[in-house]
Parts: sequence; C-alpha cells; structure tokens
Amino acid sequence: MTDPRGEHIVRAFDAELQELEHTIVRMGGMAEAALETAVEALARRNSTVAAEVVQGDREIDLLEQQISERSIHTLALRQPMASDLREVVAALRISGELERIGDYAANIAKRAMALNQLPPMRPAHSIPRMARLVQSNIKRVLDAYVARDAELAAHVWESDEEIDETYTSLFRETLTYMMEDPRNITPCTHLLFIAKNIERIGDHATNVAELVYYLVKGQRLEGGRPKGDTSSYTVVEPPEGGRGRAATEESPKP
Amino acid sequence: MTDPRGEHIVRAFDAELQELEHTIVRMGGMAEAALETAVEALARRNSTVAAEVVQGDREIDLLEQQISERSIHTLALRQPMASDLREVVAALRISGELERIGDYAANIAKRAMALNQLPPMRPAHSIPRMARLVQSNIKRVLDAYVARDAELAAHVWESDEEIDETYTSLFRETLTYMMEDPRNITPCTHLLFIAKNIERIGDHATNVAELVYYLVKGQRLEGGRPKGDTSSYTVVEPPEGGRGRAATEESPKP
Repeated sequence: MTDPRGEHIVRAFDAELQELEHTIVRMGGMAEAALETAVEALARRNSTVAAEVVQGDREIDLLEQQISERSIHTLALRQPMASDLREVVAALRISGELERIGDYAANIAKRAMALNQLPPMRPAHSIPRMARLVQSNIKRVLDAYVARDAELAAHVWESDEEIDETYTSLFRETLTYMMEDPRNITPCTHLLFIAKNIERIGDHATNVAELVYYLVKGQRLEGGRPKGDTSSYTVVEPPEGGRGRAATEESPKP
Repeated sequence: MTDPRGEHIVRAFDAELQELEHTIVRMGGMAEAALETAVEALARRNSTVAAEVVQGDREIDLLEQQISERSIHTLALRQPMASDLREVVAALRISGELERIGDYAANIAKRAMALNQLPPMRPAHSIPRMARLVQSNIKRVLDAYVARDAELAAHVWESDEEIDETYTSLFRETLTYMMEDPRNITPCTHLLFIAKNIERIGDHATNVAELVYYLVKGQRLEGGRPKGDTSSYTVVEPPEGGRGRAATEESPKP
C-alpha cells in the first residue's frame, strides 16, 4: 500500500496481531506451567504449591478476557479479510482452549490438596508421566502456532492417541487399587479425575492443533479424530472372593 | 438506509443472522435431546438407544462446523460493527459450547452401555434428577438467547449452584456404595463420571448464559461465578472395619 495513511493502518493492524500472538503465547506458557506445577504439587505432596496454582488460574482467565476483548475490538476496527480474519478468529478460539487447560490444571491442584490429607497411592506415580506427554503437546502446539507450522500441528494432533492409551491403562490400574482396599477408594477417585483432567487437557491441545492447522492451511485436518481412550466402555471386575486384581473384559463396540 | 443497494445488503445480512440463530437453536435442541436420551438409556438400561446418541453426536459436530464457517464468512463479507459484530461472535462461541454439551452427552451414552452389562446401582436413580435440572437450564438459556433476555440468562447463571450441590451429594453417595462392595466399584466409577459429565454440561449452559448476557448488554455478568461443587476437595473415609458408610470430613479451603 502506497497511501501513507493506509500504510499506517496496516502497520497498526500488524502490531495488533503481534500483540495478540504474544498474549496467546504468554497465556499458553502459563497454562502449561500450571499443569506442571499442579502435578509437582501432587508428586511432592505440597499443598502450598497446589494452592498457588488454584490462585494463579485467575490470571489465566484475565488474559483470556483481554484477548477476547482485543480480538473483537480488532474485528470491529480493522474489519480484516481472508487470512487476517483467520488470525483474529484463531486467537479468539485458541485463548478459549488455553483457558480450559488452566481450569483443569487448577482442578488437579485442588484434588492434590485433598490427596495430601490421605496416605500415598501407587497409581499416583503414573500421573507425572502422563502429564509430561501432555505438556510436551502443549509446548509443541504453541511452537506450531508461532511458526505457523501446519505439519507440526498435525503431528501433535496424531500423538494425542498415546495420551489416551496411557489414560486407559492408568484407569484400569486405579480401579484395581480401589478393589483391593476400601480405604483406597477416596484417594483413587481423585486420581481417576486427575488422570481424566490431564486427558482432557490433551484434548484441548489437540483442539489448538486443529485451529493452528486451519489458520495456516485454510482447511480442516482430514480424517476422524484419533481416539485411544476406551475407558468409557471399560468394565473391570473383582475376582470371586479374595483381593481384587484387574480382571478385564473387552469393550463393547458402539 | 435509503440507498436501495444498501438496503439490500442490510436485508441479506439480517437474513444471515437469522439463519445463524436458527441453526444455533436447532443445535441446542439436539444437544438437549442428546442429554435427555442418554440419561433415559441409562435409566431404562437400553443400549440400542445409547448407541443412537453416540452416533447422533456427529450431526451436532457438523452443525458446529457449519455455524463456524458461516460466521467467518459473514464476518468477512459483511464486516459488521458493534452489536451486529457481537451477534456473529456470540453465534460462533455458543455453537462451541453446544458442541461440548453434545460430546458429554455422547460420553454419558457410552458409559450407559458399559453399565448395562453390570448389575443396577442405586446411585443411578439420582442421575435423572440432576440431568433434569441441567436440561431445564439448557432450555431456558436457549429461550434467553432467542428472546435476547439478559435477566433470564442471569437467572440460569445463578441456578448452576443447585446443580453443583446435587453433584457433590451424588459424589458422596456413590463413594459410599463403592466402599460397601468391591463389585460396585466399576459401575460406580462410571456413575461418577456420568454425574461429572452432567455437571460439566451445566457449566457449559452457564457459559452460554454469560455469552447471551454479554450479547444483550455489551458487558460481562458481574461477580464471581457461583460454585457449589466442593467435590474436588472431598474426602470420604470408610469406618474402621465393617461395611462402608459415609464418614465425611470437611473440605480444606484453598
């Protein structure tokens, strides 16, 4: 654009887009850190740190509000077209996904506080491993966003399956512990919900991957979503008498 | 606008907004019906009906895609300002919330299929009551959307607390059943997740209420979100020896 006023408008718009992107990246970093810290608080049985994560979620929520208001302001003021429009809509939606990730991390932290009042449970050891897989997906999908890398986004999208499988096996293990001793039921229930929260965080990272792919390519990721979590169909039965062990039954197909 | 071409554009835009609204209402009706049918499938132990809900979720997903594509198309083509812009952004976001409601309803249906393989559990009786509260909120928030009724939206927003409280008491009851007999653990775990799904559906209806309020008033609902669900902090302990009963302990405050 040669008109100096036009150029000025274009530059102002670019600055707004950059500002949106920076806020998204900051928000993503905070959401990822919230997950990491919540799981650490669980592993180290540290309720003080857990309470900080619960408190900190407010800040993530405020960033989402900020992004939402700025996006709508930009839409109204700049009336962007085509790929610029996709940029603003992507920012709006990605921030929504990151806000949910923050909520789930805060819920993990709350449950860690409940667990710290109870004896340690063995299935808790599998949680950090599952969380690391999910964290790596959050990190990579933010990288994909910054680099506008559709391939990397597609790669993150596919790797959600491993997380779902880890969740399903943790689900079975935890049920077995519950069957062994009724005193394990309360802590194991919290562990089940923590694992579910992490799995959902993984789903939200997958949603971000879809949004990044669409942002870059202008079209949707092809094919059905990978789904390795079969726990909704899982039936684990205690054996006749004696202590529980994992007696499994195959999942019904819908 | 007196310019006949301008008038034509305005009329075309209004038609697009109306079309968006109709699709939202249709999608909301389908999401609400999915919840109702999933809970019926659970109560009547009917896996055929449950499988239909799982299948039907695809249709809700397609409607969300359709609304998303049309909203972005409308933003690009009409470049709406102020309240018209809020209309389009609200449609985009409300459809996202309704899509999640459909997902949770499908998950309830999957778990109903697992439960139908197992003996009936008493806590299952409390599920339909909780679901009815949530369904009524979905219905009312869609009414609020159609009527652009901010008061009704605020009312739905407040009544989420009752749902959360119902969930917390169902949570405790279910844990007690798990402690009574290890054979109850698998079915009760599915019931816990079903109840959690319904509670989350309630949260999404609350999100829609916030979006409707913002759409009408141009400002956010004031005050912290009502929260009656304290189950994340809940510790239920089995008594020394003997069968389990609900021995409760107060929740820690964060």
